[in-house]
Amino acid sequence: MAFQILHDDYNSDARTGLLSTAHGDIATPVFMPCASRAVVRACSSQQLAALGLQMLISNTYHLLLRPGPDVIARAGGLHKFMGWPGVLATDSGGYQVFSLGKLAEITEGGVRFRNEMDGSEIFLSPEDSIHLQNQLSADLIMCFDECAPYPCGYEYARDSVEMTLRWAQRCRQAHQGDTQALFGIVQGSVYDDLRERSARETVAIGFDGYSIGGLSVGESRQEMFAALDTSLTYLPADKPRYAMGLGTPLDIVQCVRRGVDMFDCVLPTRNARHGSVLTWDGVIKINNAQYRQDYRPLAEGCDCPACRQHSRAYLHHLFRINEAAAWTLLSLHNLRFYVRLMERVREGIAAGELNDLERQLCAWTQRDEQ
Amino acid sequence: MAFQILHDDYNSDARTGLLSTAHGDIATPVFMPCASRAVVRACSSQQLAALGLQMLISNTYHLLLRPGPDVIARAGGLHKFMGWPGVLATDSGGYQVFSLGKLAEITEGGVRFRNEMDGSEIFLSPEDSIHLQNQLSADLIMCFDECAPYPCGYEYARDSVEMTLRWAQRCRQAHQGDTQALFGIVQGSVYDDLRERSARETVAIGFDGYSIGGLSVGESRQEMFAALDTSLTYLPADKPRYAMGLGTPLDIVQCVRRGVDMFDCVLPTRNARHGSVLTWDGVIKINNAQYRQDYRPLAEGCDCPACRQHSRAYLHHLFRINEAAAWTLLSLHNLRFYVRLMERVREGIAAGELNDLERQLCAWTQRDEQ
Repeated sequence: MAFQILHDDYNSDARTGLLSTAHGDIATPVFMPCASRAVVRACSSQQLAALGLQMLISNTYHLLLRPGPDVIARAGGLHKFMGWPGVLATDSGGYQVFSLGKLAEITEGGVRFRNEMDGSEIFLSPEDSIHLQNQLSADLIMCFDECAPYPCGYEYARDSVEMTLRWAQRCRQAHQGDTQALFGIVQGSVYDDLRERSARETVAIGFDGYSIGGLSVGESRQEMFAALDTSLTYLPADKPRYAMGLGTPLDIVQCVRRGVDMFDCVLPTRNARHGSVLTWDGVIKINNAQYRQDYRPLAEGCDCPACRQHSRAYLHHLFRINEAAAWTLLSLHNLRFYVRLMERVREGIAAGELNDLERQLCAWTQRDEQ
Repeated sequence: MAFQILHDDYNSDARTGLLSTAHGDIATPVFMPCASRAVVRACSSQQLAALGLQMLISNTYHLLLRPGPDVIARAGGLHKFMGWPGVLATDSGGYQVFSLGKLAEITEGGVRFRNEMDGSEIFLSPEDSIHLQNQLSADLIMCFDECAPYPCGYEYARDSVEMTLRWAQRCRQAHQGDTQALFGIVQGSVYDDLRERSARETVAIGFDGYSIGGLSVGESRQEMFAALDTSLTYLPADKPRYAMGLGTPLDIVQCVRRGVDMFDCVLPTRNARHGSVLTWDGVIKINNAQYRQDYRPLAEGCDCPACRQHSRAYLHHLFRINEAAAWTLLSLHNLRFYVRLMERVREGIAAGELNDLERQLCAWTQRDEQ
């Protein structure tokens, strides 16, 4: 993997770049929809490619449980298994082990947890996670980290950062082959000195890119941006930076201004399945009675399959009868919105007009919160 | 609507034809997937059109409850509401009132039933059904009939046929405009003389085409074909004939040999959502463990979106995790199978080789029943 910065923003730390991988070049900043179980929910790979999406992220924890790494390895890797021709990343599963698994034990060696599918016990070490990710063969893979809970006491957070650093060493060591880029993960909860130490020492180990973890886990927006800012301060400018699990359109623009290059979030698809639809004028709740006889498209000028073919009234009807086709169409719409958002972000950086986009999204978010 | 017979089969009563409507010409025999609630479940109109489907059938009963006829009328009719550019039929809702509704009362005037959505009482007369179907503005519409239950005593069936005939008169009278074709419906349960009377008298009223109702409601296969044969005997050769609610691939071929031109059935999509996948070698139950590591497409040579992009192993995984994308992909596959089936039926008639297709499907069905 190679990363090249194309344009530095004059007004902020934002930059556009090009991430070159074996499965194509990615224009950054980029948003990766979550295909945690080897599928972006309610969408087919073909539909996603048609939206102009460049890259998806899947999840080692979910794939370990189902369908199992053997099934994907025998398919020839995750790209072939999913029928996805574009670029893929995998998360290490650390976050999911801690947030979803019935944890039995965390030791220096790794974590033991209960398989939610069949109740069996699974042990996952940093080496195991990297080995699994090597088998899955996504283009970008992640170190196995402990994502500390929020709120988190200082001492727990400190010990967690230290263990995550030792695990990062072991991941670096365990990683096989040179076609997959390995990203280190910065943790440290909301503590400045821990964020600094985590970032400095992760960079000292040396990775192809750096992820900032432990964000948007319950902390305030102010705490989140403080933790992000500190983390970013100590990351090298010439490597891609990935803010894990973010975010809303406004989050993304505000992170981009700070120098973040990559994002992933379940929001556009999860919200779609709950009837929350993104437009440049704000959020539409398609379930609302006001859309029953609204024959306009979800968003004027949108070229997604929902807007090209259907009205709000029709989508309201499909959503009301609990139709899977509604989840698909609304998901495709929201994902297309994110594709356009990232295009506008990149254009905004190149043209020095990122502020305008941020202002629009601020107004939009305030209106939505009223 | 015009109907032209293109080719009469030398070996059977099968024929190919051309049904010309305001929304395009339909090659018959044709299969209409069920878009009962203005959607073929888990599929978008765009996906259906891409499969080569010519025609869908929707349902007055379902649309009356949701979204309501006002919503569809204000959209400019069902084609526009659904975003479906092709040909549409609507069923009158008779069958659904009797099979789904909490019936309060059947009178000469019409039926009173309880709205399953909100518990309110709805009265539907033959005139109401036609008026609603005029509003929906599908290309083909159906008379409002009583579909007698099975088993059904002779006297009930006789009275029901007589009332359905009087209702057919009223429907003929109530029908407005000349762009929509109106079909009469032959009933008569499993009684030869009632089938004969129903067919003769329906034809005497005079319709653009004739539907054969009350089939596949619980009677044996032998009884079904006997009732069908009697009904067909008294229908004019130059009008299209529609066997309502049928059927399996073998049913379809065996009905086509008897001179049926049109079919509708929920089987291909309902079975798909339950993991039953059609191939020319028989049925695949995608949930079976044997497909966990089967990297072949569902069917060799199939050009549907599922087969072009994905393996059985991947679809098995999606189905196992209860993914809506699986329902969509499997539905599209089964519908594509039906499109190809009807193409093969029409080619078989033109080439005098319908027997070969029937033999293949017989072997297939026997294998599947073992």
